[in-house]
Amino acid sequence: MIDLNCDMGEGFGHWAAGMDAAVMPHITSTNIACGSHAGDPQLMQATVALAQQHGIAIGAHPGYPDLQGFGRRPMSLTPDEVYNLVLFQIGALHAFTVAAGAALVHVKPHGALYNYAANDWLAADAISRAIVDFNPALILVGLAGSALVESGSDHGLAVAREAFADRAYERDGSLQSRRIAGAVHTEPERVMAQALMIARDRQVKASDGSTIDIDADTICLHGDSDRAASLAQAIRSGLHEAEVAIRPLQEVLAQRR
Amino acid sequence: MIDLNCDMGEGFGHWAAGMDAAVMPHITSTNIACGSHAGDPQLMQATVALAQQHGIAIGAHPGYPDLQGFGRRPMSLTPDEVYNLVLFQIGALHAFTVAAGAALVHVKPHGALYNYAANDWLAADAISRAIVDFNPALILVGLAGSALVESGSDHGLAVAREAFADRAYERDGSLQSRRIAGAVHTEPERVMAQALMIARDRQVKASDGSTIDIDADTICLHGDSDRAASLAQAIRSGLHEAEVAIRPLQEVLAQRR
Amino acid sequence: MIDLNCDMGEGFGHWAAGMDAAVMPHITSTNIACGSHAGDPQLMQATVALAQQHGIAIGAHPGYPDLQGFGRRPMSLTPDEVYNLVLFQIGALHAFTVAAGAALVHVKPHGALYNYAANDWLAADAISRAIVDFNPALILVGLAGSALVESGSDHGLAVAREAFADRAYERDGSLQSRRIAGAVHTEPERVMAQALMIARDRQVKASDGSTIDIDADTICLHGDSDRAASLAQAIRSGLHEAEVAIRPLQEVLAQRR
Amino acid sequence: MIDLNCDMGEGFGHWAAGMDAAVMPHITSTNIACGSHAGDPQLMQATVALAQQHGIAIGAHPGYPDLQGFGRRPMSLTPDEVYNLVLFQIGALHAFTVAAGAALVHVKPHGALYNYAANDWLAADAISRAIVDFNPALILVGLAGSALVESGSDHGLAVAREAFADRAYERDGSLQSRRIAGAVHTEPERVMAQALMIARDRQVKASDGSTIDIDADTICLHGDSDRAASLAQAIRSGLHEAEVAIRPLQEVLAQRR
Repeated sequence: MIDLNCDMGEGFGHWAAGMDAAVMPHITSTNIACGSHAGDPQLMQATVALAQQHGIAIGAHPGYPDLQGFGRRPMSLTPDEVYNLVLFQIGALHAFTVAAGAALVHVKPHGALYNYAANDWLAADAISRAIVDFNPALILVGLAGSALVESGSDHGLAVAREAFADRAYERDGSLQSRRIAGAVHTEPERVMAQALMIARDRQVKASDGSTIDIDADTICLHGDSDRAASLAQAIRSGLHEAEVAIRPLQEVLAQRR
Repeated sequence: MIDLNCDMGEGFGHWAAGMDAAVMPHITSTNIACGSHAGDPQLMQATVALAQQHGIAIGAHPGYPDLQGFGRRPMSLTPDEVYNLVLFQIGALHAFTVAAGAALVHVKPHGALYNYAANDWLAADAISRAIVDFNPALILVGLAGSALVESGSDHGLAVAREAFADRAYERDGSLQSRRIAGAVHTEPERVMAQALMIARDRQVKASDGSTIDIDADTICLHGDSDRAASLAQAIRSGLHEAEVAIRPLQEVLAQRR
Repeated sequence: MIDLNCDMGEGFGHWAAGMDAAVMPHITSTNIACGSHAGDPQLMQATVALAQQHGIAIGAHPGYPDLQGFGRRPMSLTPDEVYNLVLFQIGALHAFTVAAGAALVHVKPHGALYNYAANDWLAADAISRAIVDFNPALILVGLAGSALVESGSDHGLAVAREAFADRAYERDGSLQSRRIAGAVHTEPERVMAQALMIARDRQVKASDGSTIDIDADTICLHGDSDRAASLAQAIRSGLHEAEVAIRPLQEVLAQRR
Repeated sequence: MIDLNCDMGEGFGHWAAGMDAAVMPHITSTNIACGSHAGDPQLMQATVALAQQHGIAIGAHPGYPDLQGFGRRPMSLTPDEVYNLVLFQIGALHAFTVAAGAALVHVKPHGALYNYAANDWLAADAISRAIVDFNPALILVGLAGSALVESGSDHGLAVAREAFADRAYERDGSLQSRRIAGAVHTEPERVMAQALMIARDRQVKASDGSTIDIDADTICLHGDSDRAASLAQAIRSGLHEAEVAIRPLQEVLAQRR
């Protein structure tokens, strides 16, 4: 049993991003940008409405305040700055779910903040505290095996361990930097194979050829390529054939316990 | 019985604004900037904490997305844009009150948005709906006699009618534009006199010398001059001598009913 | 003889916009966004390089400081604010042309600023002065028949009168607001026909069916649809068949004198 | 002989910063914020005008695109991003000097960019190239002994080596991080003494008590405290008594050769 999640609402103003409407039917959770690395009030409202239509679990996707760098450039923030940044963004998205009569289910940090909190205990702690202080019933989504996931657990949060079907892994279970060529898989077969390996075998092949164990509750799909929808559909079908059930995070976590 | 409110947290990053800590002891409600015309996550957190220390009612102070113009430059937004802009900002500030264990009590639009909604029914309606959709128990603060206040009432919101001790009024009860010299009173005696006239006599003198009736539940003080604190203290004393009780909005509105 | 221009570099950070590379071969002038309504340093550098490769005249395309609204939302700025805003953006783009060994040829305001200056004499004057004060040899591009073009002439600037192949016109020669359905033509035949009518007959059909005279030195193509390149090519061919020469602004203006 | 410089125009919109007008009479060079870490078109125009009135040399003061962090938070940018960021900002300020009939004399990076380029050769190279590509006659101001200064020299730029009267130094000649208590001196006597030691003895005392040699062409004063003007005046008088001539950068560099 596994959840399929996708980052959405990652446009800004005039600029659309991703194939959100086309990918929605194939996933169970969506992480919506909150106006910092991407997203604006209009788009947040529209993306919440879209997720609601598709009956998909809604999460906040807070990122660095770096619109130009799409939240992917490392920034040096204090734990206090991280705490407040995340709290602000969760609150903003929460308002749109309340107005829509929808529920806010989870929080998944974005880009460089996600990576930073995967290894930095102070950042991981700041994010966990922001979530606990706002609503301890929210699920924290972080990289499987990361400091973020461990910190969330320590704070009593339900945590969902994430794995990536289309990202290359280093031997230590970290994601290969996007600056390295080949860090993002684009061939459908390869993405499919990695998704299946994660969901069924609970393993992934690292870039050096070694096989590493990975315990994942959710697989991240990317929604910004033209083939995003067909790829998402293919993964869904592949998992189905392999008899892996695709279920929302809450169910996956409930079963795990 | 009247409430004294002041806009606060109107700095940004490196830039402080106002004498927030010095004015706090003299007021009963504060409107906190939400990161759009001013304010940032760090400052929002700090200002909520300050208000909490002083036992002052906390409100959201949403403005236009125009940091450079401090939300004072008219912008042409659709009602949908206004709705989402306000919802976003209320949500962001709400998160800081939740994390602090404080209550969010009211919403007062800022600057050009406040003025626009004083006259434009679609904007007033959009703001009222954003508040109702987030939390219908919030109090809407708007210019006494404005479309905003009437729209809020129509939507079933508790509304607080605001008057200004230091702003010149036009004969029709609107505020004189800040672009006109003399639109903002700076002499303490004059500000004092206008505050007293509003609170005790329920009247104000317009710029053409005529006297207009005004029903106000709250008086706005400005916190950004060096004398803000001494002026606030003087007004407080003056109202006290005139046996006008200074009470938070909730009490003022409760008594009114 | 006519110039074909297209707004380019109108993405931001992560977000691309338009089919710049595909449209470039078919035009003679490009207006490059300067980081205010769109554009960022990376994209400005890349777009200048692209224009240089195609031997196309480079212009600055300054807009309102409203990234979220893509510079299309009217804002109320003082003439001083307009002057400084335009000067800032011209200077920023100029630096990229200098570094690339290219020339800055013209300035064309964007969106709501363009429309505002078409009718508001103070805004038109502010833009003209900003250009004159930076470099009086720059060409000012504005709506044919507008206050902007007249103001530029009064300030001694060479001015290029612009017409639109894909925008509906009002009877008075102004552009129909984008908020009105049908304000932007999308059928290739219609766009082609309007381009031809402008270039050959020096006329355009208004939305009420009347025919209005228009003296244009340049036709604006839009580069942000999927069909932008094929449309640009079709217009080029159509004008060629009608024996209208497509030449850069400098040549068009030189011939006019 | 030494130059006295001060960072100015570091407000934004509604927010003033520094005592620019009061400090101007006491310095010989000013570094003006270019709209990225601080500054906006209105303020850039006003600060250029102020510098011109006082006959002070004008420089561009480019910083990271982090308004909220005042350009003081380290960001991870590629050399290309640094190059384009600096080029953009130099160009923007240059436009204001041209319109004012003033000269752009130097470029001094701000905050975290300044510190990054003091040690990172790729960043230093990117900044040097941006200056050379825009105008090789501009003077590059960098920390005495830094990679930035050396890189500028390698690129054929005139370089000015900067020292700080009010910042604590580490033993290796780098500035102590602002995050460390005591990194910024506030007692006038101490600032005075350090200024004199730099200008006369060409030495500075490090935080560990050791004395280090420093060859400086310019001393940086800070303009953002209430005492900035009196401190600047005191330093000027102190240097005068010690028979150190205070001259603009160009003269200081000319004499050095």
